[in-house]
Amino acid sequence: MMSSLPGQVEFHEEGPREGFQSENKRYSLADRAALVDALSVTGLVQIQVASFVNPKAVPAMADAGQLYAVIRRQPGVRYTALWLNEQGFRRATETPGVDLDGKLMLYTTDAFCRKNNNCSVAEQRERQQQWMNAYTACQVPLELAYIMTSFGCLYQGEVPLESLLENVAFIQELCQRCGKALPKIYLADTVGWANPEEVKRRVGAVREMVPEARVGLHLHDTRGLGAANFYAALQMGVDLFDSSVAGLGGCPFSSHADMTAAGNICTEDMVFLCHELGIETGIDLEALIDAARLAERIIGRPLSGKCMHSGSLAGARADAT
Amino acid sequence: MMSSLPGQVEFHEEGPREGFQSENKRYSLADRAALVDALSVTGLVQIQVASFVNPKAVPAMADAGQLYAVIRRQPGVRYTALWLNEQGFRRATETPGVDLDGKLMLYTTDAFCRKNNNCSVAEQRERQQQWMNAYTACQVPLELAYIMTSFGCLYQGEVPLESLLENVAFIQELCQRCGKALPKIYLADTVGWANPEEVKRRVGAVREMVPEARVGLHLHDTRGLGAANFYAALQMGVDLFDSSVAGLGGCPFSSHADMTAAGNICTEDMVFLCHELGIETGIDLEALIDAARLAERIIGRPLSGKCMHSGSLAGARADAT
Repeated sequence: MMSSLPGQVEFHEEGPREGFQSENKRYSLADRAALVDALSVTGLVQIQVASFVNPKAVPAMADAGQLYAVIRRQPGVRYTALWLNEQGFRRATETPGVDLDGKLMLYTTDAFCRKNNNCSVAEQRERQQQWMNAYTACQVPLELAYIMTSFGCLYQGEVPLESLLENVAFIQELCQRCGKALPKIYLADTVGWANPEEVKRRVGAVREMVPEARVGLHLHDTRGLGAANFYAALQMGVDLFDSSVAGLGGCPFSSHADMTAAGNICTEDMVFLCHELGIETGIDLEALIDAARLAERIIGRPLSGKCMHSGSLAGARADAT
Repeated sequence: MMSSLPGQVEFHEEGPREGFQSENKRYSLADRAALVDALSVTGLVQIQVASFVNPKAVPAMADAGQLYAVIRRQPGVRYTALWLNEQGFRRATETPGVDLDGKLMLYTTDAFCRKNNNCSVAEQRERQQQWMNAYTACQVPLELAYIMTSFGCLYQGEVPLESLLENVAFIQELCQRCGKALPKIYLADTVGWANPEEVKRRVGAVREMVPEARVGLHLHDTRGLGAANFYAALQMGVDLFDSSVAGLGGCPFSSHADMTAAGNICTEDMVFLCHELGIETGIDLEALIDAARLAERIIGRPLSGKCMHSGSLAGARADAT
């Protein structure tokens, strides 16, 4: 029954970037560094520390560069950054301590693309050639490509499977044109539109089109289906996920109402799920739960993660008499 | 791909009982009735209003009887009650307005049975014959049998599949002895120990043993796997679930730490999942989300439901231009 599940799953932690970015309150560099440091000793191999975006649009990230200077770097951990345009990438290259992973960012709808990137889908595609050139110039390998709102868009509604596949085809063509190998392709459920059957259908369709690409998922728990969508992806053999410790985060432009409900899937809860299914993650769940509790103390209100409140079953198993 | 999913799913709402029972604060009869009334107009066919248990152990339920007198009953809705012993059942029979559903309650571990029912597993089994007699005497049909801690017990650890199946065999024998048809059998993950593969394995094993029985699930979202476990059950064709509006609740004796994290699976989020998968529930999701928001106002702190904060996709689809 477990035959299609992957033997091993890789988590890329987005909590520090997603979490602090979507809060109205400002948090000190020391607090934000403390969370990154706690995450650094859990076995996570990649932590997205901050974003280099317009400080007027996202004031919480204005001092992003300083954060990389104060964290305690651990060997084997990559400290990555998000950027939405070439200017952001330049700032990232000029910041000591940022581990640069070349990434593309595609959109399925003009409306969401304008909100997040201030241009049309077609313009964003044209820019990807420039991004590629910039990566080549800086000797940054192309690693991944995000397809935002891969399942649905709150401004334009349903996203047809064809729109997703068009983007996959564009990535394929661009890479061929530039003589690059196909990067990892992330389907992003930016606004919490996915359901488990649709996860299976879309992952399957992308796989069929580009069997050589590794497919990853960026899932939000906006409407409570995060764990079900994650499990559906596991059933498809997906072994690469973005997630946020304690369920931190939420896209600033993705929620209708209460931002507190719109976080990413929760890293420690999904790691717990993997371990219960016998899937390796390389992560120390108890250390990760400690980091989640630290995140909650820093943010200063109850966060949505569950294991951080109930304890993992390791504790329960040890207590059992 | 959706071939094994049920076409229709039935939800039994437990929020009013689970929710108010597990809070330290006392809530007025008017508030508790208002929540039941809001739930009554959503299309739900069954609402567990209160429990008839020892008022010393669960003071919030001391005035349970009065609640049935003040709710506005809707046709087609059953207003049920929980009891843990014959005395509780007697109180339920003496309370006007309680819809009596004959139920058995079995346990897999002595430790949890003692906490919840103050007796051993063997004693609890013996009592089930008396419960059956009491139901027969009151002309209450036997409808369901709960097997508590069907997946694991926080006092005794892992629950072997054999312990679950022993209980199924006991129910089968008891019904044969009493000349009763097999009731619906609920596997209860009372303490949040289940994972999706184990849900499939245990549901499959029970089905194999008693193919004629309808299997239901009582799931908690203690460790964030509620939606994944629910989806796994759907994949097995399970079409009967207990759940709580807004994710209210939690068993008073099941959590290690913070009760706020240990609620049942959230009714409206799981109804949303069903509707997204094309599964009928008979429930008006928007009305149910309204009831969840009322629950949050009454309880007076953020509850764990997600759709109640983000809105359903019906709203997002209507807004999409």
